[in-house]
Amino acid sequence: MKNQIISLLVLICVPLLLHAEDGHNLWLRGKSTASVNVVCSKHSATIDIAEQELHQEWQGKANATVVLTIKPNKFIKGDGYMLSDDGVQANTDLGILYGVFALLRHQQTGNPIRDVIISNPSYERRILDHWDNLDGTIERGYAGRSIFWHDGKDSLAVTEKDKKLWQAYARANASIGINGAVLDNVNASPLILTTAYLNRVKAIAAVLRPYGIRTYLSVNFASPIVIGGLKTADPLNPEVQKWWKDKAREIYGLIPDFGGFLVKANSEGQPGPQNYGRTHADGANVMADALRPFGGIVMWRAFVYSANDKDRAKQAYSEFMPLDGKFRDNVIIQVKNGPIDFQPREPFSPLFGAMKQTSVMSELEITQEYLGQAIHLVFLAPMWKEFLKSDTYQEGKGSTVARCTDGTIFSQKYTAIAGVSNIGSDTNWCGHPFAQANWYAFGRLAWNDQLSSDQIADEWLKLTFMPTASEDKTKSTVLPIVWDIKFLKPVKQMMLESREAAVNYMMPLGLHCLFAPENHYGPGPWWAPKYVRKDWTAPYYHQADTAGIGFDRTENGSDAVSQYHEPLRSLFNDVNTCPEIYLLWFHHLPWTYKLKSGRTLWDALCYHYQEGLDQVREFQKTWDRVQPYVDSERFYVVQSKLRQQCENAQVWKDACLLYFQQFSRMPIPYDIERPVHNLNDLKNDMGRSR
Amino acid sequence: MKNQIISLLVLICVPLLLHAEDGHNLWLRGKSTASVNVVCSKHSATIDIAEQELHQEWQGKANATVVLTIKPNKFIKGDGYMLSDDGVQANTDLGILYGVFALLRHQQTGNPIRDVIISNPSYERRILDHWDNLDGTIERGYAGRSIFWHDGKDSLAVTEKDKKLWQAYARANASIGINGAVLDNVNASPLILTTAYLNRVKAIAAVLRPYGIRTYLSVNFASPIVIGGLKTADPLNPEVQKWWKDKAREIYGLIPDFGGFLVKANSEGQPGPQNYGRTHADGANVMADALRPFGGIVMWRAFVYSANDKDRAKQAYSEFMPLDGKFRDNVIIQVKNGPIDFQPREPFSPLFGAMKQTSVMSELEITQEYLGQAIHLVFLAPMWKEFLKSDTYQEGKGSTVARCTDGTIFSQKYTAIAGVSNIGSDTNWCGHPFAQANWYAFGRLAWNDQLSSDQIADEWLKLTFMPTASEDKTKSTVLPIVWDIKFLKPVKQMMLESREAAVNYMMPLGLHCLFAPENHYGPGPWWAPKYVRKDWTAPYYHQADTAGIGFDRTENGSDAVSQYHEPLRSLFNDVNTCPEIYLLWFHHLPWTYKLKSGRTLWDALCYHYQEGLDQVREFQKTWDRVQPYVDSERFYVVQSKLRQQCENAQVWKDACLLYFQQFSRMPIPYDIERPVHNLNDLKNDMGRSR
Repeated sequence: MKNQIISLLVLICVPLLLHAEDGHNLWLRGKSTASVNVVCSKHSATIDIAEQELHQEWQGKANATVVLTIKPNKFIKGDGYMLSDDGVQANTDLGILYGVFALLRHQQTGNPIRDVIISNPSYERRILDHWDNLDGTIERGYAGRSIFWHDGKDSLAVTEKDKKLWQAYARANASIGINGAVLDNVNASPLILTTAYLNRVKAIAAVLRPYGIRTYLSVNFASPIVIGGLKTADPLNPEVQKWWKDKAREIYGLIPDFGGFLVKANSEGQPGPQNYGRTHADGANVMADALRPFGGIVMWRAFVYSANDKDRAKQAYSEFMPLDGKFRDNVIIQVKNGPIDFQPREPFSPLFGAMKQTSVMSELEITQEYLGQAIHLVFLAPMWKEFLKSDTYQEGKGSTVARCTDGTIFSQKYTAIAGVSNIGSDTNWCGHPFAQANWYAFGRLAWNDQLSSDQIADEWLKLTFMPTASEDKTKSTVLPIVWDIKFLKPVKQMMLESREAAVNYMMPLGLHCLFAPENHYGPGPWWAPKYVRKDWTAPYYHQADTAGIGFDRTENGSDAVSQYHEPLRSLFNDVNTCPEIYLLWFHHLPWTYKLKSGRTLWDALCYHYQEGLDQVREFQKTWDRVQPYVDSERFYVVQSKLRQQCENAQVWKDACLLYFQQFSRMPIPYDIERPVHNLNDLKNDMGRSR
Repeated sequence: MKNQIISLLVLICVPLLLHAEDGHNLWLRGKSTASVNVVCSKHSATIDIAEQELHQEWQGKANATVVLTIKPNKFIKGDGYMLSDDGVQANTDLGILYGVFALLRHQQTGNPIRDVIISNPSYERRILDHWDNLDGTIERGYAGRSIFWHDGKDSLAVTEKDKKLWQAYARANASIGINGAVLDNVNASPLILTTAYLNRVKAIAAVLRPYGIRTYLSVNFASPIVIGGLKTADPLNPEVQKWWKDKAREIYGLIPDFGGFLVKANSEGQPGPQNYGRTHADGANVMADALRPFGGIVMWRAFVYSANDKDRAKQAYSEFMPLDGKFRDNVIIQVKNGPIDFQPREPFSPLFGAMKQTSVMSELEITQEYLGQAIHLVFLAPMWKEFLKSDTYQEGKGSTVARCTDGTIFSQKYTAIAGVSNIGSDTNWCGHPFAQANWYAFGRLAWNDQLSSDQIADEWLKLTFMPTASEDKTKSTVLPIVWDIKFLKPVKQMMLESREAAVNYMMPLGLHCLFAPENHYGPGPWWAPKYVRKDWTAPYYHQADTAGIGFDRTENGSDAVSQYHEPLRSLFNDVNTCPEIYLLWFHHLPWTYKLKSGRTLWDALCYHYQEGLDQVREFQKTWDRVQPYVDSERFYVVQSKLRQQCENAQVWKDACLLYFQQFSRMPIPYDIERPVHNLNDLKNDMGRSR
């Protein structure tokens, strides 16, 4: 009966008059439906923005009055806020702005505020890392070119168009609580620290500042040589130390609220302190000392590994643990979520919680380098939640990664979290309309890591796809209850399932790094040219042979398990207790190994790949069914990308099963669809795997 | 219990020691398992071959005696034969050879002869048409180059390698009753009638002759001009008439049993009598008169159509019917099975049975020009049976196409059937191992058009895949009952279903000519450049628009139905009685038209395409399951081709549904898998649709 009513309602309401949307407005589509009076005793650029947002987007009671109060409250921390139906209170101007955005979000998601809400940020610094090169390209960017840097003549001239885009960027970030941006690639050009570029940074910072966003820069460790004219970049050399101090002074002269440096050193060919026989601590500290007088920080990446015989997964821990306690208090070690490199699924890096005398922050990857880029629909909140909730046991049960980095367990002078941005110059910012959800989710989790993936998806979908107020006024309206059941519920389900689907069709059961080289998009489990260092080839990671598959990281293997605190060490080490999702991460097992399901390892692998493909097929059906509720512009873009995703899932399944079958020598279970590609064709096509 | 026993037997027998097979031996894999005594009072090249075959392949009782008797018998017609357990009787030497092959086939398929079998050919002339060009390429050939013609210097020199190949070819044909070969393309080079080429034909004929195979040639109507130096090829010109007579005399001087000419005239740019204001009858008769003194025939093709406004499907009938009775008795009008051009499914050409005063023969296409070429597994016997059994009603109920062409209804001086060959220089002759079955099926049906598709597939599979005697002697033997259940039954089922699957994923419900241009392989329903004549574009045939789809050939449309004899005319004309398989061949119908299933036309179309794809997926499973029973060489070739077929079926489904959906504007039913390709990509990829 309920269904009948809904069907009836749908019939009445279809076709909806939905405006074509190019996605440029992101989740900020709300338009005011009534006038509002705003009362605030203070004025500032930030407060002015808050007032303007209220007027532009107010959807509460007509002629209501909203009071903005800046007053200390012991329950409000940092830039947190207290929210009621008719007021926002905060310690800071920025807290007011965050509170206003929250108030408007409550209205637009149909989630009225009862009583009072206090919301404080989980991490003090919530930063986007832009891997933007100074020529305008973006490393691992799939949505056009850099919004900060252009190539060509006049590339450093600041135009009105630039500023407009930066402002839209700043507003979007502020609306979800992001308060920092690293403007250039971690593979940094020394030129970024020349005065010409710093002047452009100053201009960017001026636009971002009222929105509470500090600018940071990735810097090249060899800068004192390349742009400073010194003969060395040895961090213990007084001239080098002076150079960094002078440079810091210059920067702060231009940008008083400059955030600090992000450094990739002695990693994948980048210069670093080890070039001079110095440690990472020596390197980080020289910069930290230069920045400290101005309140700046150094985010020093732990993403290091070399082509030795050691298990790559162990190297960051091995290299950084001996340095624990040797870093200045304005250094934060920035650690990728997993021990290797942003794979579809990794266990957490053992450095989390282990470095007890050093500030540590998480580096997440919002851009879908290894997760289908701007083609695949993969909602990353579940992956990040899985990571943040991982218990390190370093200070007893409940020592989650989140708590090990947010200051509740270890006293850190600064707490922070970073996400590698997926933003580019494409009209819709992120390439895939659903990739915007990952930007949104990162911001929301950085603010409040207790939010569930469901809550975030729910919010984002309502803000991004719900018919807007102006559409609502047309005759062909859709009732919220119909929209919830027909659109929100199935699409949210698709989002929440999407990351596990990608794991299934790419790398189930703990497999990792099976990608074709360079573009990290399609499958290349066979890829291992002789001239390439072993730890850059796929077989290094899957170790498949006729005896079995998987990387033995147990005591009998690389002993990477020993980097985890008990009981994890034993749990991962024992094949009977190791979680199945990490099975081949930690164990090399025979193809005939029986899983708990009773299936052999080989069969289970086959079923996972098929399930991944079938999941994407279901996503396609889900999306096609919601066509009446989406404007045609976004509908067809997503439909088209889902088709590619499905075709890609088939390629992944075929490539991995046909390749591994050469070793397993077992049939693909006969109730599974057979491959439709031939292995040799897939190998030959690898070059054009997009 | 039965299943358990079989499983047990399989376990005992696996792994089979199956010899790798390259397919060159076709269905002639039998080796003698015992000695045999052959008694025959006569000797000839043909009888010698028969005796040799008996010795080489005998699998009957050891030291048995087989008597070959050439003696007229009123029940034996032409080259027919009478078979018993220990003897073959025939009117002719060739009849003996056919009988011996039949006897051996009975042994090798485990089908002992009880009592006496008499077998007479359905058609007197059973001919392969080779569309081989003199430069060695083959039009619509997908299995390498010509076995008759080479390019380059010394291309006309006859080598031992040539002769060996021709002999193997002749033997294979004789084993299934084929007794004629047109050696060159119907788009004929005039050079074929020069003395240099005729000398090569003489050499080929000498190898083919003992196997009972006559040679025929496709000739160019303009030959008198191009190689004769005349100013005209007007068939009523005495010089032209003399030229053809002289040429016939020259040919028969070299090849006394020369079969005759095949002519494509005034068709697709070929010259013909209409160039001189003469009729097809004038053109055919001039050649017929030249050949008659030597017993030669003319096979004159009815495959004519021009770029006028008339329905192409009507043109052959319109052009030839007025000429009925005007052809010499040694002319046979060669008519393609359908009115258009070898499509996956067509109704029979209305010329069959309609030309009552003229000899008519069928032209079938063995090579899979429109059916996936050497990639798709499509067994054509069901298509040909459907055609041969079609009732024309021209002389009352039961006037099947078969009976209208085999002399039982109309008195024809010559009866014949032709198949366009799929043979090339590839080791396995036909490209796809299962394409051999189509060569086999054509020969068997030409001999006996009453054979069922099931019988033919059964025979061919046993001859082609059953472990041979020598393998049988190994320890790892497979019992026939196991082989029957585990291999024969499922693979035969796959073969029998394969043509309908292709219709489903390519052109269901009477659709036709949706191919990408030129290569006739992938889909191109959109293909209609402005510079191309309309009847060479796909939309000409499907006529899809927002109102509906299909070619209106009813009384209200092109009235092609009127070319069929009642009750077919009315049956096809009425949408309620028109068989669903021909629905869109004869009718233009709204997308919402309700089929008998209750489904709309659009939905039904969607389900057909999905069913086709699913059928191929099942074929893949079938084939993978029989791996233990097939040598690895052939197993992997077929497995690989099935994968491509499945991928192609997906492309066909997506291309047609996405293209037609632009007109239907209806959703693909939601229980059907969504497309995984985007229409624009498919259009762009058309050029490389293989």
